[in-house]
Amino acid sequence: MIETDHLFAVILAGGSGTRFWPASRRLRPKQLLAIGPDPERSLIAATVSRIAPRCPPERTLVATGEHLLDATRRALPELPESSFLAEPVARNTAPCIGWAAAIAEQRRPGALVMVLPSDHHVADEASFLDAVSIALESARGGAIATIGITPDRAETGYGYIEAGAELGGGAREVVRFVEKPDRERAEQYLASGRHFWNAGMFFFRAGVMLEALRMHAPEIRTGVDRMLAAGSREAERQAFSEMPSISIDYAVMEKASPLTVVPASFGWSDLGSWQSAWELGAKDPGGNVAPAGAVLLDARGNLVASSGGKLVALVGVEDLCVVETEDALLVMPRARAQEVRRVVDALGERGRDDLV
Amino acid sequence: MIETDHLFAVILAGGSGTRFWPASRRLRPKQLLAIGPDPERSLIAATVSRIAPRCPPERTLVATGEHLLDATRRALPELPESSFLAEPVARNTAPCIGWAAAIAEQRRPGALVMVLPSDHHVADEASFLDAVSIALESARGGAIATIGITPDRAETGYGYIEAGAELGGGAREVVRFVEKPDRERAEQYLASGRHFWNAGMFFFRAGVMLEALRMHAPEIRTGVDRMLAAGSREAERQAFSEMPSISIDYAVMEKASPLTVVPASFGWSDLGSWQSAWELGAKDPGGNVAPAGAVLLDARGNLVASSGGKLVALVGVEDLCVVETEDALLVMPRARAQEVRRVVDALGERGRDDLV
Repeated sequence: MIETDHLFAVILAGGSGTRFWPASRRLRPKQLLAIGPDPERSLIAATVSRIAPRCPPERTLVATGEHLLDATRRALPELPESSFLAEPVARNTAPCIGWAAAIAEQRRPGALVMVLPSDHHVADEASFLDAVSIALESARGGAIATIGITPDRAETGYGYIEAGAELGGGAREVVRFVEKPDRERAEQYLASGRHFWNAGMFFFRAGVMLEALRMHAPEIRTGVDRMLAAGSREAERQAFSEMPSISIDYAVMEKASPLTVVPASFGWSDLGSWQSAWELGAKDPGGNVAPAGAVLLDARGNLVASSGGKLVALVGVEDLCVVETEDALLVMPRARAQEVRRVVDALGERGRDDLV
Repeated sequence: MIETDHLFAVILAGGSGTRFWPASRRLRPKQLLAIGPDPERSLIAATVSRIAPRCPPERTLVATGEHLLDATRRALPELPESSFLAEPVARNTAPCIGWAAAIAEQRRPGALVMVLPSDHHVADEASFLDAVSIALESARGGAIATIGITPDRAETGYGYIEAGAELGGGAREVVRFVEKPDRERAEQYLASGRHFWNAGMFFFRAGVMLEALRMHAPEIRTGVDRMLAAGSREAERQAFSEMPSISIDYAVMEKASPLTVVPASFGWSDLGSWQSAWELGAKDPGGNVAPAGAVLLDARGNLVASSGGKLVALVGVEDLCVVETEDALLVMPRARAQEVRRVVDALGERGRDDLV
């Protein structure tokens, strides 16, 4: 079994907050929103709660931007101050995973680490924890393990992991990581039975990751060492800022070995847009996802999200997103949910920083 | 010429406030809203301003419901307290026009009266005043005069006035008043050159109207006499409440003579729904009517009305009404603007009197 008192969770909680505008903002990115099926709980709080059976608060680390630190603390009041790692600048995932691994190793030599995104949805938490257990067993044996989500559609928006031989116990070898495919390739992947969605979850011994960084991304390993040796927060910030901005996939996962993948299906969604929020939401007979008080007349397939507390009335409209906050209102077809970024860009061009 | 010091304007300012929900409410009906092209001025303020060249404040009367009295006073700060006639209950137009005529006659024996709706739009005020002058000349000669709007489409939502012989000076005989026609009849009316929209404007000597009421609606004439003889506000309220609820069209206009109509075109709109607000509004190249700050991307033909002050962003939507107030938000196709009444009904059924 897992040496649970050596297990650390590292929750990645950066993000820029454009996809769920106007609910998400620079200072209120997706993980701080309750856009999953539970309107009472932020995605990051759900993430921490989900792994709480394996990781107590003192071994749950949250890596976030300095500008998000206060809001993130407020979202996770059960975590101690030592849980929060504040990144002074955005440097993608490799530097902060390296930093977190080094801290885990420092706090508990021989630490085992699981890295999890803070802003995804998991429907079946028991199946999720089963997959985590298998991945941790694999990591305990020295591998860098991942979880691969069994695809149920030819998705072109995700990276894939190609799996090889079965290794027993539910894990498989990783043949390679694949970037977001085109439509044709995505269809092949769906049919192959060997390709899984990369959900950005990683499991490893802290020492294994630090060694992998030394071999494949030495600037990051050096930077991490400097951070831990820093005598002041200022020196620590300086060391972090000097590291290259690079993803863990590119820095390590595409080069390191052994790599394993645990295929799993637990109702995963990366909640990539308002469209995903509609897909996950509880629907009325007309296929609308809307607050209880909304007035919906001949309205079908709409998503209504209202944090401003207004009564929302829809008459005779279909497949729209209608999102209302204290200071902004967005109306667009669900099918164009990806284009919300254009609104954020337009507001930026107009100098409306108060709204982005 | 007109004896202008004997001229009174009677502005009809009742109304229930459902067609422009959520902007309009029971306590904030249409005439109190700035839904015309001028976003700074309520329709009733525009109405009073429009006739100000002919009628000073002390001869401008405003008939409104008791429940609307405070809001109406606030909308017309230039009018003295003696201008406001408060109806204790809604009794349609005949009782209040009779009351106003009696008051005018009492204040200035031989008074000439023009009755105007408070919630319509007039684009060309000079042409409007020209038509008013002709109608007043006709009224001075003893007729009950009206203005008939030259139709520019086969509208089935208005009543029509069929005109007969020319009487010189721009007025014509009225052959008859016609209820809202069906489509086929409306097409005939449009083609006839003899049918005009009844815009609800009436011009008469007060004595002529009081005599017409005595002949055609004696209960109203008696009620009006009782009101003026009442020794207390309570007795006045009682007398008003006892009158039948009946329109001036039905009580008098369809029976009295002589009746005249002044055909005119001055960019009139009754502003019957959000669709009318869009028609009158200033449009961007995409045909959108929206506040200056709105973000409109691939959006065409939409009406955005925002009194809540939020930024409104539309992406890829067409021909919608998006109306936002402090406490409610409405989204519907412009073509279904008439159905806003269904939302008001639904809110009533839910006991949401705070929102209607």
